[in-house]
Amino acid sequence: MDSGPVPTRPTGGSAAVASSSSSLIFLGTGCSGALPDARCLIQPSEPPCTVCSTALSLPPDRNPNYRCNTSLLVDYCHDDGAHRYILIDVGKTFREQVLRWFVHHEVPSIDSVILTHEHADAVLGLDDLWVALPSCQRNGSAKVPVFLTQFTMDSVAARFPNLVEQKLQGGDDFARPAQLHWTIIEGDVDKPFVASELQFWPLPVMHGEDYVCLGFLFGRKARVAYLSDVSRILPRTEHGRPFHSSIRSIYSDSRQLI
Amino acid sequence: MDSGPVPTRPTGGSAAVASSSSSLIFLGTGCSGALPDARCLIQPSEPPCTVCSTALSLPPDRNPNYRCNTSLLVDYCHDDGAHRYILIDVGKTFREQVLRWFVHHEVPSIDSVILTHEHADAVLGLDDLWVALPSCQRNGSAKVPVFLTQFTMDSVAARFPNLVEQKLQGGDDFARPAQLHWTIIEGDVDKPFVASELQFWPLPVMHGEDYVCLGFLFGRKARVAYLSDVSRILPRTEHGRPFHSSIRSIYSDSRQLI
Repeated sequence: MDSGPVPTRPTGGSAAVASSSSSLIFLGTGCSGALPDARCLIQPSEPPCTVCSTALSLPPDRNPNYRCNTSLLVDYCHDDGAHRYILIDVGKTFREQVLRWFVHHEVPSIDSVILTHEHADAVLGLDDLWVALPSCQRNGSAKVPVFLTQFTMDSVAARFPNLVEQKLQGGDDFARPAQLHWTIIEGDVDKPFVASELQFWPLPVMHGEDYVCLGFLFGRKARVAYLSDVSRILPRTEHGRPFHSSIRSIYSDSRQLI
Repeated sequence: MDSGPVPTRPTGGSAAVASSSSSLIFLGTGCSGALPDARCLIQPSEPPCTVCSTALSLPPDRNPNYRCNTSLLVDYCHDDGAHRYILIDVGKTFREQVLRWFVHHEVPSIDSVILTHEHADAVLGLDDLWVALPSCQRNGSAKVPVFLTQFTMDSVAARFPNLVEQKLQGGDDFARPAQLHWTIIEGDVDKPFVASELQFWPLPVMHGEDYVCLGFLFGRKARVAYLSDVSRILPRTEHGRPFHSSIRSIYSDSRQLI
């Protein structure tokens, strides 16, 4: 089931009485096509798939068979009690995830974005990212950073030219249609970066036989390794320097859990 | 409210007792960001927006405030009683529309696709189109045609290289990863084309000041002009040859209806 935060954010309270601790909100734990698989519903087998045929029968927050694209929201509570929201991946179902889980957990907006790779289930919701930007960002006073590798950047720029800074024809001026700050990271386990004052170590892993996807190691009190799309862990990643201290590992790829 | 078919398809029946007439199923009648606007829910104004704050309170089929991206499904009943399903536009909310309305109206799959233009609210769901292909197409025996202009084709190819036939490196062979047949149309009011044995006349209209979007004129018994994204109708379109007979016009752009 999506959105089982660890630890759970209190529900039903107002933003003014938000938790004083950090938490993880699983916005999605589904496969690339998400669940239910529409094919099981419009062209059902005999007998019908029990997972997908029951997926529309309960509200998503009580339904383990309704899962959006894999995505994690890190609710990072700073020492001063202020919350910062760091979004990992913006897949095809992002808008639905905002409607379901941002509203449920009273998340007002995001402060940083991190992309694991450039497949559709990780980036195709970028066109809707603006709905979750802080209102001051939408008015142009600041930009939300998006951390990604150069390989992912090239793919995103081809798919979403409207979201990327572009040189205007015949001049030195740039069009800046979106309030995003695209920030290239190296994707190396020894090259951490900081998003919303929280340090992240990239964890490059194999996704299939010839494609590298990033996971991330983060956390101050508890350390969490988040690997969303992985078929094999590289030795350099597994034995890298960041892992010399204790780690709490969470594999969010539901294909390995279910 | 999405999905008010004209005329209404019977609900609750099985595919074996499908209607013997054609119908239109409005898969979406919302704006480019769809409704509800997530911003109204996660950063509500005071007083809150009444449209969006009530949009999650009722099931979509009884909720005029829940609207997906604009899209039309033409359920075309041939003279022999066989139904063919022609999909106009595949926006960001396509998967959700399949789950809601294909299941509700017992639509098993699509036979043709037509694209009006290449904005995200018309094409960004193409990555999920495969779930609605006939199972024989998924097995590679035939291809579903997608009708679009060259301008739209170029944009789709940049965004979805995995859906478009590509020449393999260092040879004359082609990779054909998707069972789609991309078919270029001229977008001219005098250049009709045929999708699933139904004739369509393109209706080029202005979408904004400098962008052309296509509407379509179709229908044998009743003629329907479908204009999904239009700010101004061009004189050549309004007075073109296909309009010399009577027309039933439906404007699906909810921004003009609400």
